[in-house]
Amino acid sequence: MFIEIITVGNEILAGQTIDTNSAYISSELRKIGIAVHYHTVVGDRPERLLSVLKKALFRTDIIIATGGLGPTVDDVTLETVSRLTDKKTIQQAKLLKNKVGTAPGLIISWQKKTLIVLPGVPKEMASMMPEVTKYLKKKQKNKTIIKTRIIKITGLAERIVSRRLKGILKIKGNPLIGIYPHTNYVDLKINAKAGSKEKAGQLIKQAEKKITQRLGIFIFAKDEQTLEGKVGELLRLQKRTISLAESCTGGLTANRLTNIPGSSKYFKMGVITYSNESKASILKISGPLIKKNGAVSPEVARLMAKGIRTLAQSDLGLALTGIAGPGGATRTKPVGLVFIALATDEGTICRKFNFKGDRTAIKLKASEAGLDMVRRYLTKPCEHS
Amino acid sequence: MFIEIITVGNEILAGQTIDTNSAYISSELRKIGIAVHYHTVVGDRPERLLSVLKKALFRTDIIIATGGLGPTVDDVTLETVSRLTDKKTIQQAKLLKNKVGTAPGLIISWQKKTLIVLPGVPKEMASMMPEVTKYLKKKQKNKTIIKTRIIKITGLAERIVSRRLKGILKIKGNPLIGIYPHTNYVDLKINAKAGSKEKAGQLIKQAEKKITQRLGIFIFAKDEQTLEGKVGELLRLQKRTISLAESCTGGLTANRLTNIPGSSKYFKMGVITYSNESKASILKISGPLIKKNGAVSPEVARLMAKGIRTLAQSDLGLALTGIAGPGGATRTKPVGLVFIALATDEGTICRKFNFKGDRTAIKLKASEAGLDMVRRYLTKPCEHS
Repeated sequence: MFIEIITVGNEILAGQTIDTNSAYISSELRKIGIAVHYHTVVGDRPERLLSVLKKALFRTDIIIATGGLGPTVDDVTLETVSRLTDKKTIQQAKLLKNKVGTAPGLIISWQKKTLIVLPGVPKEMASMMPEVTKYLKKKQKNKTIIKTRIIKITGLAERIVSRRLKGILKIKGNPLIGIYPHTNYVDLKINAKAGSKEKAGQLIKQAEKKITQRLGIFIFAKDEQTLEGKVGELLRLQKRTISLAESCTGGLTANRLTNIPGSSKYFKMGVITYSNESKASILKISGPLIKKNGAVSPEVARLMAKGIRTLAQSDLGLALTGIAGPGGATRTKPVGLVFIALATDEGTICRKFNFKGDRTAIKLKASEAGLDMVRRYLTKPCEHS
Repeated sequence: MFIEIITVGNEILAGQTIDTNSAYISSELRKIGIAVHYHTVVGDRPERLLSVLKKALFRTDIIIATGGLGPTVDDVTLETVSRLTDKKTIQQAKLLKNKVGTAPGLIISWQKKTLIVLPGVPKEMASMMPEVTKYLKKKQKNKTIIKTRIIKITGLAERIVSRRLKGILKIKGNPLIGIYPHTNYVDLKINAKAGSKEKAGQLIKQAEKKITQRLGIFIFAKDEQTLEGKVGELLRLQKRTISLAESCTGGLTANRLTNIPGSSKYFKMGVITYSNESKASILKISGPLIKKNGAVSPEVARLMAKGIRTLAQSDLGLALTGIAGPGGATRTKPVGLVFIALATDEGTICRKFNFKGDRTAIKLKASEAGLDMVRRYLTKPCEHS
């Protein structure tokens, strides 16, 4: 089964909108073992669209077109498809209901080929995909299952993860294991193909076992789970509470934690003590002590963590202080220097980091490291006491 | 000049990575008045790439290919291009230095066509684009300039903005004026084409004037500027300081403000008083008062704003309290209900909102409304006293 996705829209061709539809459709089809062979983007021009459609009909069996459909936009896609086929074929098409918007989708059978026409609005397109995959699954002869698992790593640079996984990462064969770096963490994607769900699941499991042996505690979550989600889950299960004192991260860590539904159960309080006076007034850290060590110091980080833990009467207190840049660096304290302290009933630990990147990257990496200290503490508390 | 962008990569075809390169290249070319006619995505398969290249050479004059280039990945693009042309042509190609990575780019002239081969890593590709646009500009016969201006609106739904701009929005003609909704604001994009920069600038100015007449104070920023950037600029220019007391937004508002370099000049302190006890302990709001009115009430919002302003000794105090959901709603207080208060030396104002969407959308919309109250206060203080 050869498939081409065609995206119709001037705004995408002009680079004003990024085409996320093609990726979405591809990954939905992948889940049922269908690979896509081409993506094509073309503007709202009937002649060019017609030639693209003809080319696609020549080289593939199934065309999925999105965009250029609907009441407000020029209805170029449907018009061009009817020119290519004929009115009767269009009238016999299977309608796909639009539960989110107005323009319906169509599944058109024509000369042993299938033409699926979907709206361009991502939500509307996505709402029709279950019916599309169901339809294509029926047409599938060779029922291959593709299963995917994502394993998320933090605290190790991409090249270290690569080195640790020497002989395991595979860009060919089955399962495929790929590495995808983000600013604050690294994704490993395992893709397994098999004739049955069970077989694909086994392949995933075997690969996962090898990866876990090499990376252990650096793995923080799987698939859709986030680091803040994992930390939240651990806090909830262990019935512990947390509070935050942030300086350089400016509320990002609290924002991430509170993105998780139900976080009010374990997140008690956050303070963003950006100025030295606020460190004094809320956290009771003396001015002379800040002056002596500097606001970015392990001493101040520790006092911030202890201070917020006491103020909030929470089980854990996490504090972050550092230089997010671009200004604020001194001869001994460069941009990216961050101290993170975690206060618990077993004492207070503090770690020093040197992050690279611009202001938002440093904020993100610092919040990641802070949340990861909490995760590690809650995962293996004895190692950190 | 007909142009096609070809993206080479299995990960993009499979939907595991979203193709941002094509959009970036298109918009860079647009700036010098060059329109792109097709985007094509193809996997790391030599035969398919060859047929895509042939088709592109047939229908366009200039091909820009990204991906499939470099030492670690299969060097499929260059290999296929040499099969299509010949070794000598490749050797005579113009090299594009890679300042960020290893694989260089190439500009190949062959049979009156131009083939530009760039790496797939977005940063590496982007680092070569200035040289690419310089090269293409020289080839350009019809030197049309395209200028773009983005006007950002908040506090009005997309359909209201559309209605207010009746007769102004234009999807055909010159300048084009389009509307692009985001979760928390609306973009208006003006695209003007002309023979000179001055003429294009004039067209933009005229359109901008009309839009400003219809939307006035709802316009918060232009082009790259963000709402938090605008608020920061106003605070800096007026030498005023701000502090935040957040409940439902959980640190998002502070995070946005502190994303702006130099924000420590005006942002003094933030507190995230998620629990009722924290509202009492930090902001000195009495337990019985919270119990009587509820934590999500105009009374508590006002006291939070006044409390943080006093504690931080800042000129402004902004407070947000609401129900981000999915839990926490009551019969009288639905998910999305948010009260936002701004305390100043002229008194305290409070507004009630009912936001729609999921947890993160409600957080984002609430922080947007809060920052916008600050912007409006600093823009026209007399209206709010």
